[in-house]
Amino acid sequence: MGTGHGIQQGGHPNRLWWRSRSDDRSGPFEHKEYSYSMMIDTPAVLIDRERLTANISRMAAHAGAHEIALRPHVKTHKIIEIAQMQVDAGARGITCATIGEAEIFAGAGFTDIFIAYPLYLTDHAVQRLNAIPGEISIGVDSVEMAQATAGLREDIKALIEVDSGHRRSGVTATASELSQIREALGSRYAGVFTFPGHSYGPGNGEQAAADELQALNNSVQRLAGGLTSGGSSPSAQFTDAIDEMRPGVYVFNDSQQITSGACTEKQVAMTVLSTVVSRNVSDRRIILDAGSKILSTDKPAWIDGNGFVLGNPEARISALSEHHATIFWPDKVLLPVIGEQLNIVPNHACNVINLVDEVYVREADGTFRTWKVVARGRNN
Amino acid sequence: MGTGHGIQQGGHPNRLWWRSRSDDRSGPFEHKEYSYSMMIDTPAVLIDRERLTANISRMAAHAGAHEIALRPHVKTHKIIEIAQMQVDAGARGITCATIGEAEIFAGAGFTDIFIAYPLYLTDHAVQRLNAIPGEISIGVDSVEMAQATAGLREDIKALIEVDSGHRRSGVTATASELSQIREALGSRYAGVFTFPGHSYGPGNGEQAAADELQALNNSVQRLAGGLTSGGSSPSAQFTDAIDEMRPGVYVFNDSQQITSGACTEKQVAMTVLSTVVSRNVSDRRIILDAGSKILSTDKPAWIDGNGFVLGNPEARISALSEHHATIFWPDKVLLPVIGEQLNIVPNHACNVINLVDEVYVREADGTFRTWKVVARGRNN
Repeated sequence: MGTGHGIQQGGHPNRLWWRSRSDDRSGPFEHKEYSYSMMIDTPAVLIDRERLTANISRMAAHAGAHEIALRPHVKTHKIIEIAQMQVDAGARGITCATIGEAEIFAGAGFTDIFIAYPLYLTDHAVQRLNAIPGEISIGVDSVEMAQATAGLREDIKALIEVDSGHRRSGVTATASELSQIREALGSRYAGVFTFPGHSYGPGNGEQAAADELQALNNSVQRLAGGLTSGGSSPSAQFTDAIDEMRPGVYVFNDSQQITSGACTEKQVAMTVLSTVVSRNVSDRRIILDAGSKILSTDKPAWIDGNGFVLGNPEARISALSEHHATIFWPDKVLLPVIGEQLNIVPNHACNVINLVDEVYVREADGTFRTWKVVARGRNN
Repeated sequence: MGTGHGIQQGGHPNRLWWRSRSDDRSGPFEHKEYSYSMMIDTPAVLIDRERLTANISRMAAHAGAHEIALRPHVKTHKIIEIAQMQVDAGARGITCATIGEAEIFAGAGFTDIFIAYPLYLTDHAVQRLNAIPGEISIGVDSVEMAQATAGLREDIKALIEVDSGHRRSGVTATASELSQIREALGSRYAGVFTFPGHSYGPGNGEQAAADELQALNNSVQRLAGGLTSGGSSPSAQFTDAIDEMRPGVYVFNDSQQITSGACTEKQVAMTVLSTVVSRNVSDRRIILDAGSKILSTDKPAWIDGNGFVLGNPEARISALSEHHATIFWPDKVLLPVIGEQLNIVPNHACNVINLVDEVYVREADGTFRTWKVVARGRNN
């Protein structure tokens, strides 16, 4: 056995060296030699700081060039340090999906938070919202909930969600409810927002951005004013002429973003480090210890496999159990041995982050640190 | 608005009453009136204690009748209280998927733990295994790892994983490696195990149980002895003539188990309580606040939808975002209103449990308690 495969001659397992074999690995760790050994129990989530920083800068530059305020969605990462990097790069504020996420980020000092979700306002939800310091705004897409905002602190604003083609939540820009909601919100009304989720899929970004612009503009025209807030990572490059955008996944990128045309493989900043635990040479099948309990199983019909090996896109995960990934290894590439470590690019980064309590961050100088996923599991 | 929909006339949200409307809900909460109000922030995982107890008893009775030792897999629930119920019902010990799970359950006093996984034995893994008190056994499916067990405490046993048709990890019962692994294990060898995962799917259970029996028997015949350990929830009812079985999901059941023929809807003990946050009357579309970050997205090709509404199997989730479930509501049933609560039967219970830190348990007398998911996220 060669070095780096974890087995010494005597049969005792060696410390794992976090390194790559040049024949079939690349990515954040490509062509780099490390002067130290490091042991990470796999599976584990890795972040490459240089790529993360570049992704944050690139989106901030796009927003700046188009004079769109950036309010990134922190549900993707749920990590204070990353949200701070986004604000330091010029973000106006942050976007959350739940009251629980907003509580965490407000507690860490973030003072301008939009919960871009049509919250159901129970008494408890109202109490919790009223207790969050800073500038808070929420989403509303029904007359009932517009009326229910009456219990909220006066300075909490509301944006009306409109549907720009994703057909999920949100009222249509032409519906009579739109004006009724606006009326019920009174002075709380701040504008309209949409999530152009139909941007996901190969080549969908441009049309989704056009739909978004039309839905937002039609809405504020009908309502005689208000902020327009939109944005998704796949449509972001085509977004223009709206007031604010709320992309999320762009900080990490993932297989969905690559396939949607939003990034390249070299812009993927988050991977799942895994170990080959089993192999079948005649079938060219290997089994990794990263399963659905860390990779999640998000798999739209337009994606092949449940993630792929970084630097080796043909090596796709054909099946995922809770603690096993099955890969039928490409013929032209040397079959990995037991103990070898592979970096997996997941299909959907947001669901991966929500499965771990901390991530390992590789700094530009080669050192590592960990960050806590402080808002993990804050589903309500 | 009627009662129970969370809205008072004045527009202020009311406390949610956890109750069902008789027209379109059933299940654990069917035809029951509660004399109290209870507020649970949704989405949340609910366990019905009566059904849980019945599921545990039923599997214990089957195992007892066939003289098969029961070693349930705790990765399904990751909850101490449930593992204790299983042991109290006669389980020989428990099965874990990872060292981290074994550490948690050993720390809670469980003394007979099989980690049914072909672990990669790093130095750190060996240290951790050696520190777990009690009777510990692990899985092995390669000569390399059989040799690497030399670093383990002498009383830690190993079972060889064989592939009975699932084509994941495990050696084939006829492979030359089988004897080589047995030889390398020496006195640590305790038997063979398999996971007949090809039991998942409509009508697959019986054939998978037959394949399992053949693979296990062939293996111990070649190896001149040893324990035979198998079992999965869908094949369990057909399992006979092996020494030990390790089903997991049967405690809760889920949409996969129903479709695989392993249970009925009335035997589902775990649901996700969710709230209708948005509706589109003309499309008959409702949006729930339970998304992929609590329901997970496990969806085999032979399952329709990403879970369904308890008591209303035609109401299936057609799309899942992180915090939204989209349901196109059946024509014959009254469209739920905003604020209404629905219980969702997920496709795969094991991945749901791993997304929450606690569950709500409804006792037989109608009171509630919470249990901690102590082994959540223990992926390594």
